[in-house]
Amino acid sequence: MTMTPGATAPVRLADIVSGLGGELHGDDQRVITRIASLESADETSLSFLAQARFKPLLQATRAGCVLVRADMLPLVPEGASAIVTPDPYLYYARLTRWWLARKRQSDAVGVHGSAVIGQGVVIHPTATVGAFAVIGDRVVIGEHVVIGSHTEVGSDAVVGSATRIASRVAFGHDCRIGARGTIHSGAVIGADGFGFAPFEGRWEKIEQLGTVVIGDDVDVGANTCIDRGALDDTVLSDGVKLDNLIQIAHNVRIGANTAMAGCVGVAGSARIGAGCTFGGAAMILGHLEIGDNVHISAASVVMSSILKPGQYSGVFPIDDNGSWEKNAATLRQLHTLRTRLRALEKKITP
Amino acid sequence: MTMTPGATAPVRLADIVSGLGGELHGDDQRVITRIASLESADETSLSFLAQARFKPLLQATRAGCVLVRADMLPLVPEGASAIVTPDPYLYYARLTRWWLARKRQSDAVGVHGSAVIGQGVVIHPTATVGAFAVIGDRVVIGEHVVIGSHTEVGSDAVVGSATRIASRVAFGHDCRIGARGTIHSGAVIGADGFGFAPFEGRWEKIEQLGTVVIGDDVDVGANTCIDRGALDDTVLSDGVKLDNLIQIAHNVRIGANTAMAGCVGVAGSARIGAGCTFGGAAMILGHLEIGDNVHISAASVVMSSILKPGQYSGVFPIDDNGSWEKNAATLRQLHTLRTRLRALEKKITP
Amino acid sequence: MTMTPGATAPVRLADIVSGLGGELHGDDQRVITRIASLESADETSLSFLAQARFKPLLQATRAGCVLVRADMLPLVPEGASAIVTPDPYLYYARLTRWWLARKRQSDAVGVHGSAVIGQGVVIHPTATVGAFAVIGDRVVIGEHVVIGSHTEVGSDAVVGSATRIASRVAFGHDCRIGARGTIHSGAVIGADGFGFAPFEGRWEKIEQLGTVVIGDDVDVGANTCIDRGALDDTVLSDGVKLDNLIQIAHNVRIGANTAMAGCVGVAGSARIGAGCTFGGAAMILGHLEIGDNVHISAASVVMSSILKPGQYSGVFPIDDNGSWEKNAATLRQLHTLRTRLRALEKKITP
Repeated sequence: MTMTPGATAPVRLADIVSGLGGELHGDDQRVITRIASLESADETSLSFLAQARFKPLLQATRAGCVLVRADMLPLVPEGASAIVTPDPYLYYARLTRWWLARKRQSDAVGVHGSAVIGQGVVIHPTATVGAFAVIGDRVVIGEHVVIGSHTEVGSDAVVGSATRIASRVAFGHDCRIGARGTIHSGAVIGADGFGFAPFEGRWEKIEQLGTVVIGDDVDVGANTCIDRGALDDTVLSDGVKLDNLIQIAHNVRIGANTAMAGCVGVAGSARIGAGCTFGGAAMILGHLEIGDNVHISAASVVMSSILKPGQYSGVFPIDDNGSWEKNAATLRQLHTLRTRLRALEKKITP
Repeated sequence: MTMTPGATAPVRLADIVSGLGGELHGDDQRVITRIASLESADETSLSFLAQARFKPLLQATRAGCVLVRADMLPLVPEGASAIVTPDPYLYYARLTRWWLARKRQSDAVGVHGSAVIGQGVVIHPTATVGAFAVIGDRVVIGEHVVIGSHTEVGSDAVVGSATRIASRVAFGHDCRIGARGTIHSGAVIGADGFGFAPFEGRWEKIEQLGTVVIGDDVDVGANTCIDRGALDDTVLSDGVKLDNLIQIAHNVRIGANTAMAGCVGVAGSARIGAGCTFGGAAMILGHLEIGDNVHISAASVVMSSILKPGQYSGVFPIDDNGSWEKNAATLRQLHTLRTRLRALEKKITP
Repeated sequence: MTMTPGATAPVRLADIVSGLGGELHGDDQRVITRIASLESADETSLSFLAQARFKPLLQATRAGCVLVRADMLPLVPEGASAIVTPDPYLYYARLTRWWLARKRQSDAVGVHGSAVIGQGVVIHPTATVGAFAVIGDRVVIGEHVVIGSHTEVGSDAVVGSATRIASRVAFGHDCRIGARGTIHSGAVIGADGFGFAPFEGRWEKIEQLGTVVIGDDVDVGANTCIDRGALDDTVLSDGVKLDNLIQIAHNVRIGANTAMAGCVGVAGSARIGAGCTFGGAAMILGHLEIGDNVHISAASVVMSSILKPGQYSGVFPIDDNGSWEKNAATLRQLHTLRTRLRALEKKITP
């Protein structure tokens, strides 16, 4: 991540391997203007072969340079350069970050004149606070933090170093996020958990007195909601990755490096282990436990605790509407069918 | 709710029972610094026993004081104080509100200098309008209302007394909310309903001319959307509670005290009764009717009207992925299986 | 769409047929104050009969004027006027737009003094930019565009003519939208796609270097998210209509005039054809293809490509909770039941 050229200077392959390593085959003065898929790449593009099954795309690419494993080097088209690395997809990930970091070097730092800053706030001089941001009393903002425009950081909140909060985020009072995190636009961290006591047919609100505590290297997607705890805190461990439009209810705890795709919902007080993955729109009911390395398929609903690692699914298979109607109608009598089957079995083999 | 001490003064048990009632057993000068679960409580915490099945936690707690029913008093650990009340969970709910109200006494009131206020607006002198709020023409804001920063209240809207609208809410023109409501950050009240007329393979927009009318004591969660009606209004009755990321389409009507957990979706013109509950991610199709006291389980899909009170469910059970694949594949032939079963039955008992 | 009277002048039936056509039966000086459903209309309301099955409502309406097909004219109540048109629903759609356009004529244009405008921005003099909007460097805003308050348009973005972006939208850098579009409050266009490379049990972020490209006549609902592409762009073709709280992941491509109801999720790199419809909360997994004119029912999950036009469904039927529990439990043994059935069949007809 060092020795990046100025943002306006052209990028040469020499710059890339100098910054990110790898074994270069070809002209190190070749200029690269963009990173592209094998299919859409041209002679100033750098591309990559992530999986061996895309070999035909590699052989047909017009990319100026490709990232490949050593065993794929013979398949690189003549005239193209190559960077050999044991994990091209990982190299690609790091290259995108190096690429963007070059652009961002020119971004301004400092507090925009229109921002409203509370009392006793500590903002590191290398941090950036955008237009119309509202920073509550006693907030602490670490070095190289970026706070987007229209974002509100509530009183007594803490934002760790190098964390980027996009525009239009609500980051609630007393909530904390560690270092190197990202929160995308529209996310709401620390709204009230959904807590009410029933009383005479109405609902009496239970004020939510906990906070949200987020570790290091956590990403939170656009319009995702993470509610504050009722009494104790809602906790996201280091390395958790949340996509867009996810609902994390109060007092949920999520273990390290667990990742959730868009539209997932986790109900209150669920405890989720480390290293788990959740497909889009998976739903996790409340007060249950999911162990480490459990993988839930998209659109599946977890209704009781799952402690054993593995892949779990539960989705009604889609079909043409007529077939679905017939099968769904029969499904409502499935228990009866089993009883009839059992009766038949008894008759035949008594 | 009276006689609260100053926010900075320590809270003593005497203050609590003076404000909220209950029968105190123990030292009324004991200082309480937080409300906590039985498990995480310490000697300056007040905790509660909500359900008899948590008795072992009560017996092991280190809480300085616990809320209990009279019959649980003998189980309170020696040295701990107790407040006896017929419904400890309800007492806890009220205690959280009393607790927070003490803190909020010190909040500033008034209109922030950066807010943009339209013409003919009526803002009660006890109301608060946050930084960068935009209040449209002829809006009426009642007493003790709080409007958060970056919130836009559209022209001719009405916000009833003591309602709190958080930061970054869009509250559309002509929409109304009653007293003592809460709208959390990111909620969008009064966006256009999804209405289009098909014409020659394209969609012609139908402008949505209705509004959203919300009763008293209604809570709306973070990033929840309530669309304005096409011609008539979308209506939420008194006491409705909506969690985060809920979609309420145009012309939906929801009866009093109905509660919906996160990620629920209600399609256009559905009519939902009073006293209903909807688990997370339940989906309600359009133009149907749900009667009073109907309870829909999480992730269940309502495809036709349900008028009879009761609990309804419809979720594919989750399983290890291999088992699910086999059962899901068979499910696509379920109707055929029934036919085969019937044929067997005829052969055996003709 | 011409010859609209001033917004404050009363609307007469003569104004409507002059602007929108149709054959008027009755007094062309009758004043109309609102558009209403047949049920809630009164003598100054204009209503419409969209489907023949609502004939009884037509016969009972108190509307001052109704839009009807010629064959329905005899059913119009005595005393009511009528406008005869071959497609009353389409006429109604156009009437709502004509109606609202009259009101909007009085809206102010220009850039609000509080907006923050970057360098090299081109804003057409007929465009409107609201309070506290933030417009990045080199943005191009076309004629008659409306940008709402608190909306951020990132650097190098392009907003086509007559497109309306509501308040509190995040429209990301380098993203583009064509003409006559609508983006509702809270939508996030161009947040990062959810891309990470696994590395030693952690996730390494892949910066998302693509953009979002949106065609003409596209509607995007409140709090809907459309992520930027990883390398190539995420693309919405002309005439696409998205409701609220929809998630469109990176590199998705959606064909012309496809419409999606609320809470739909589309995972990364899915390619969706033209003229499709998706019911609410339908979920589309990643890297698959959906052909033209495919219709997916609400809450159904698409797990593999569907190329053949038609209606597809996959939803567990809802039932009273006790029945569901029994059938769901049996469903987990369905494959075994099939095996037992086959064994029986062999015994009986060997």
